[in-house]
Amino acid sequence: MTNILSSIASPADVQKLSVAELEQLAAEIRERIIDVVCRNGGHLASNLGVVELTIALHRVFDLRRDRLLWDVGHQCYVHKLLTGRNSRFDTLRQAGGLSGFPSKSESEYDLFNVGHAGTAIATAVGLARGDQALGRDRRVIALVGDASIVNGVAFEGLNQAGILKRQFLAILNDNSMGIARTQGGLATYLARFRVSSLYEEVKHKVANLLPKVPVVGKSMQDALEHLKQGIKATVSPYQIFEQLGFLYVGPVDGHDLPHLIDLLQLLKDVAQPVLLHVHTEKGRGCAWAADDPCAYHSPGRLKIEGDTIVAVKSERKSWTSAFADAVIRLAQEDERLYALTAAMPDGTGLAKVRSVLPDRVLDCGIAESCTVDIAAGMARAGLRPVACIYSTFLQRAFDQVFQEVVLQGLPVGFCLDRAGLVGGDGAVHHGYLDIAYLRSFQGMVLMAPADEPELEQALRLGLKLEGPWAMRYPRDVVPDPFGEAPPFLLGKCRVMCDGPDATILAYGSVVEYALDAARRLAAEDIFVSVVNARFVKPLDEDMVMTAITRGTPVTTVEEHSLAGGFGSAVLDAANRLGLPTENIVRLGLAPERFYEHGSRPGQLAEAGIDAAGIVAAVRRAVQAARSAGHDVHRAPVEAPARKQVTK
Amino acid sequence: MTNILSSIASPADVQKLSVAELEQLAAEIRERIIDVVCRNGGHLASNLGVVELTIALHRVFDLRRDRLLWDVGHQCYVHKLLTGRNSRFDTLRQAGGLSGFPSKSESEYDLFNVGHAGTAIATAVGLARGDQALGRDRRVIALVGDASIVNGVAFEGLNQAGILKRQFLAILNDNSMGIARTQGGLATYLARFRVSSLYEEVKHKVANLLPKVPVVGKSMQDALEHLKQGIKATVSPYQIFEQLGFLYVGPVDGHDLPHLIDLLQLLKDVAQPVLLHVHTEKGRGCAWAADDPCAYHSPGRLKIEGDTIVAVKSERKSWTSAFADAVIRLAQEDERLYALTAAMPDGTGLAKVRSVLPDRVLDCGIAESCTVDIAAGMARAGLRPVACIYSTFLQRAFDQVFQEVVLQGLPVGFCLDRAGLVGGDGAVHHGYLDIAYLRSFQGMVLMAPADEPELEQALRLGLKLEGPWAMRYPRDVVPDPFGEAPPFLLGKCRVMCDGPDATILAYGSVVEYALDAARRLAAEDIFVSVVNARFVKPLDEDMVMTAITRGTPVTTVEEHSLAGGFGSAVLDAANRLGLPTENIVRLGLAPERFYEHGSRPGQLAEAGIDAAGIVAAVRRAVQAARSAGHDVHRAPVEAPARKQVTK
Repeated sequence: MTNILSSIASPADVQKLSVAELEQLAAEIRERIIDVVCRNGGHLASNLGVVELTIALHRVFDLRRDRLLWDVGHQCYVHKLLTGRNSRFDTLRQAGGLSGFPSKSESEYDLFNVGHAGTAIATAVGLARGDQALGRDRRVIALVGDASIVNGVAFEGLNQAGILKRQFLAILNDNSMGIARTQGGLATYLARFRVSSLYEEVKHKVANLLPKVPVVGKSMQDALEHLKQGIKATVSPYQIFEQLGFLYVGPVDGHDLPHLIDLLQLLKDVAQPVLLHVHTEKGRGCAWAADDPCAYHSPGRLKIEGDTIVAVKSERKSWTSAFADAVIRLAQEDERLYALTAAMPDGTGLAKVRSVLPDRVLDCGIAESCTVDIAAGMARAGLRPVACIYSTFLQRAFDQVFQEVVLQGLPVGFCLDRAGLVGGDGAVHHGYLDIAYLRSFQGMVLMAPADEPELEQALRLGLKLEGPWAMRYPRDVVPDPFGEAPPFLLGKCRVMCDGPDATILAYGSVVEYALDAARRLAAEDIFVSVVNARFVKPLDEDMVMTAITRGTPVTTVEEHSLAGGFGSAVLDAANRLGLPTENIVRLGLAPERFYEHGSRPGQLAEAGIDAAGIVAAVRRAVQAARSAGHDVHRAPVEAPARKQVTK
Repeated sequence: MTNILSSIASPADVQKLSVAELEQLAAEIRERIIDVVCRNGGHLASNLGVVELTIALHRVFDLRRDRLLWDVGHQCYVHKLLTGRNSRFDTLRQAGGLSGFPSKSESEYDLFNVGHAGTAIATAVGLARGDQALGRDRRVIALVGDASIVNGVAFEGLNQAGILKRQFLAILNDNSMGIARTQGGLATYLARFRVSSLYEEVKHKVANLLPKVPVVGKSMQDALEHLKQGIKATVSPYQIFEQLGFLYVGPVDGHDLPHLIDLLQLLKDVAQPVLLHVHTEKGRGCAWAADDPCAYHSPGRLKIEGDTIVAVKSERKSWTSAFADAVIRLAQEDERLYALTAAMPDGTGLAKVRSVLPDRVLDCGIAESCTVDIAAGMARAGLRPVACIYSTFLQRAFDQVFQEVVLQGLPVGFCLDRAGLVGGDGAVHHGYLDIAYLRSFQGMVLMAPADEPELEQALRLGLKLEGPWAMRYPRDVVPDPFGEAPPFLLGKCRVMCDGPDATILAYGSVVEYALDAARRLAAEDIFVSVVNARFVKPLDEDMVMTAITRGTPVTTVEEHSLAGGFGSAVLDAANRLGLPTENIVRLGLAPERFYEHGSRPGQLAEAGIDAAGIVAAVRRAVQAARSAGHDVHRAPVEAPARKQVTK
C-alpha cells in the first residue's frame, strides 16, 4: 500500500483522492500523529478526534481563500499535515520546528497564532465584517470545541455572529470533553443530544434528503430547511443556537467522512450563520487515548511497549504535584480552603486533590472570569478559596481580579502554575506577564516559592492573609530542597548565601539557577550573595537597601518580562528610598520579543536567566566594577547591615 | 400628604406599608432621584426603571440575611434610599458623600463594590456555594439588565448557576436598552417577548393561578410548573434559560408592584435556579428621561426649566467630542478606518461619528472581549479598526489584546477615553492601570495627546502603524491648544518650554497642569523645562538622557498608578542607559490606595498631580538641590544636549 500522506503537498492533493483513499489517508494521519506525539509530547486525543472533519474541510473549502479559524488551536495537527507540513512534522514543538498551535509564520493557511480558548467565533465575525467592508467574498469557518463554547467570549461571538446577514459557518466539535469533562448547564443541555441511537437515524434522514437537493439558489434553502427539520425532529425542539440567530444542523457523526463532505458541500454557500454540531470521539482510532482522553489530552513523551503505553516522565516531582500535596495537607488543617480550576484539574494538580478531598475542588470549565468571580463570592461568604489557574490563563480574568477581588479586598488566593517559560507550548502559553499585571493592584500580595518546602510555607501564609494574594511557580520539577524553609513573613526575603563581590536578587523559580551560578562563580573567585526575594509585593525594602548600599553589583533575576516585573519593582523601591540604581542589572525576558516553542532549558538559556546566563551577567558586572575601581556614583562599600530577617 | 420616604429608616419599614402606600413611596422615590441627579449628575433612567422592582425585593426578602447582588450597580439608588441612606442621598457622587454604586463601606446591604457589567450572576454562584459549604441557609438574588446578560461572564455565570441544586434567583431586568440599544442575536431573541399585548394576558394567567397556590412543599413546585406553563404557552416555547438549567418565569410587568410582590413571594423558596424575566421601562415616570433613555442614562447636571430640561454643560469641548471629530476627519481620508464600541456609543463619541458615517461604526454590546476580537479580525482582513473603550473597561479584554492583537502584531488601535480620574463614578471607573497592563505587550505603541490638535496627530500616527497601539485621554474638557501640534513621531517627545532649574516630564492629560505649574514656579524664580513625553512606549530615551544629565531635579507626572506607569518606565530606561535615578521624583496615583468618588479637580489635587501638587513637588526638589549644592551623586550640569526632536 502506498503512503498517501507523503504525497499530499497541499490541500489541492486532498481534492484528487477518492473516498476510499481519504479513509486510508485518515488512518495514516492517525499513525503519524501518534508516532510524533509519543516522541515529542503534544496534544494527542483532540487531534485524533478531528481527522475526518479536517480532511472534509480541506476537501470542500479552498482554505487559501476561505478563512478557517481554529479555536484554542491545539487541534490543528491534521490541518498542518494537509497543508504542506508533513515533512517537518517530526519537529513538532521542538526549537526551530513546527509549533503545536496555528502559526502565521509557518503557513498561509494559519490565520492567527492562538492557544487560548473561546475566541475563534468573535475573531471570525471580525474577518467576515472586514471582508464585507472591503467587498471581498470569502467564506468564514470557525471550529470550536464543546468545552470552549461555554466560554463567555465564545457566547459573545455567537451573539454577534447571529446577526450577520451572510455566510458564516461555526462548527461545534462536540466530544463531550474539553481538557477535562465539560462543566455547567450547557454541557448538560448538549448531552441530551448524545443519545447514541439517534445517530443512525439522523444519518439516514440526511442521506435520504441529499439526493433531492439541487445545489443552487432558493431550492437549496428549501432543501436545507427540510434537512434541518428532518434532523431537529429527531432530537429536540430546543435549540439554543437558533435563538441566537443561527441555522442549527446536527448532531452528525464526525467520523463519517463521506457524510461530512456531503454536508459541508451543502452548507458551504448558505447565506446566513449556520451552526453545524458534529459529534467526535476524543482519541478516536487509538484505544488507549480514547479510553483516557484526559490523560492523553496533552501528554509528555510516551513509549509504546507492546500493548501498553508508558509515559516518559521525569523521576523528580513536579511543582504541580508539590502544589497538590500542599493543598491536600492544608485543606485538612483549614476547612475554609477550597480550590477552583477553570477546566484544568490535571494541569493544576487539583485532580490529585479531588481524589482525596472531592468536596473541596470545583471545576468551573473554561471560564476563567467566572471562576474568579465564584472564588470572590465564596470568599465573601467566609471561605478561603484558591483559584488555581495558569499564569497565561489568569490574563483572561484580569478585570474580575480587579473588580470582584481587589476592589473588595477579599482573601482570594491565585495559584499560578506554568508561570514563566513553558517549553513546547511556546509563545501563546508562557506565563510572563503576571507580575506586571498584578503588581499595580492595591493590597495584592505577590510571592513565589523557591522549592517545595517554600511552596507550602507560601500557601500557609496566603491562607492567613485577609486580602488577595498570588503565588507563581513554573512548569518544571521542583529542585532539591534548600534545607528547611523558614516560614514566609510578609514582605521579607530569605538570604540563601552571603558573599562580598555582588548580590543576586532572585524571585521564585530562578533562585535555583542563582545558587548554581553562585557556586560556579565561586570557582572563579567571585563570591556573591544570593537573596531569595520571596515577595515582589510588598517588596522587602531592607533587601533593596542592603544590596545597593553594599556598593557592589546587584543583579535581579526573574522568569518574567523585564517590563513591569520584579527588577522594575526593585528600581521603583530604590527610587522611593532615594538610592542609586546604576549598579543594578536586571535579567529577565526581553520585553519586546516572543520566545518560541522549544525545550524549557533552551528557553531559559535564550533569556539568559539560567545559571550560565546569570554567571555571565554577574561576572561582567563584577569585572567592570573591579576595573573601574571606586566609582564616584557608588556608595562606599559598607559592612553589610542586613538584618537576617527570615533566618 | 405625609412623606413616606423620610419615614423609611430601613427595609423593615417598607414591610409595614400597604400597597397604596408603597405606590406613593414609589412616586416619592422617583421625585427624589430626579431631584438629586439633576443637581449631582448620575444614573437616571435606569434607576427610575427599577423603583417597583426594588421595593418589591425589599418587601419580600430580608436582605440583611439574604444576598442581593446588583449587576453593574448603577441602578442601586432606590436600594440606597430604602436602606437608611435617604438622608445622605443629597451627597450622591460627591466627595465624602454616597457612592453612585453599591459600596460595602456604606451599608451592610451592599455586598460588593461594583461598576463593571456582567459579573453578578457568577459572583452570586460563589456566594451560594460558599454558604452551602458553611452550612448557611441564605437566599441569593442577582439582578441583571438585558444589556449585561449578553456579556460573556454573565453567560458563564448562568451556565454555572444552572447546575446548582438550591435556591438561586436571577432577575433579568429587561428594558430593551443597556446604556445604548442592546446589541446582538440574543437581543433580537428577547425582543420576541416584547409584544405588548401579551402583558395583560400573562398577568391574568398569573393572577388566576395565584390564589390556588399553597405556600410550601411539593405542591408549590407543582403550582410553579403550572405558572410557568401558563406563562410560557402565551409567549414562546424556546427558552434559552431553561436550556441552561433555569426555571424560566416571565415576562412580567416590572411596574406592577402588587403583582411583583406576589410573584417574588411565590418564587422565594423554589429550591432550584429561577430566572424571572421582568420588563421595565427605562426612565419610567419621567417623560423626558423615558423619551430619550440614552441621553439620560448617565447625564451630568441638569436644569429643569418649566417643561424643558437643559443639560448644565461646560462650554468647552470634551476630549470625547474632540476624538469624535478627529475620527470623522480621518475616516473620510482613510476608508480603512472603522470604529468599534462596546455599548458606549455616546460615552466614546461614536454616536457623533455614526451620525455622519453610519457604516463606519460598530457597536458590539457590553462585550469588550468580543469587541477586541472583532477588531482583530477586521485588521487581519485589511482594515484599520480602532476599538474605542474606556480605560477601565479595556481591562475586560486584556487577554484578547494579548492573544488576538499583540501576538499577531495586528494594527488595531485602542482609544481609551476616561483614562485617569473620572470624578463622580469613583474607584470602579478610574482608568489608572492601562499603562501598567499594556506596557508589557510586545510591539505595543502607547501614546497620549496633550490637547486637541495632538489628539488628531496621535490618531494620524496610529493609523500609519503596522502594529498595535493605544492612546489615552481623560474624562474632561480639552485645554486651549498649545499652539499648532507638530506631527507625532514614533517615540519622540515634544518640548513645551525650557528652563534650567528642573525638568518636568509629563504624559498626556497632565501636560496642561505641568505648564500651569511652570508658570507659577516662574513667579517664584524657579524656571523649569516642561516636556510632553507623548509616548510611554517606545519611550524617548533622548528625553530621559537629557533630563537626567542636566543634573537638576526631574519630576515625572502621570494620571496613572505609580506602579508600572510612566514614571516606572522612565526609571527602567534610565537603568538601561546606565544613568542615575536619585534626582527623579515620580508623581502619580498612590499605588496602594483607592480614590473615591468626588470632583475630578478634587481627585487630581488628592493625587498631587494638579498644578498645585506639581508646584509643591518641584519646589521641594529644587530647594533640596539648592541647599545641598553639588551632590557627588549627581552628574555635573551640562549644557542641554537635547535634540529638538519634534520641532
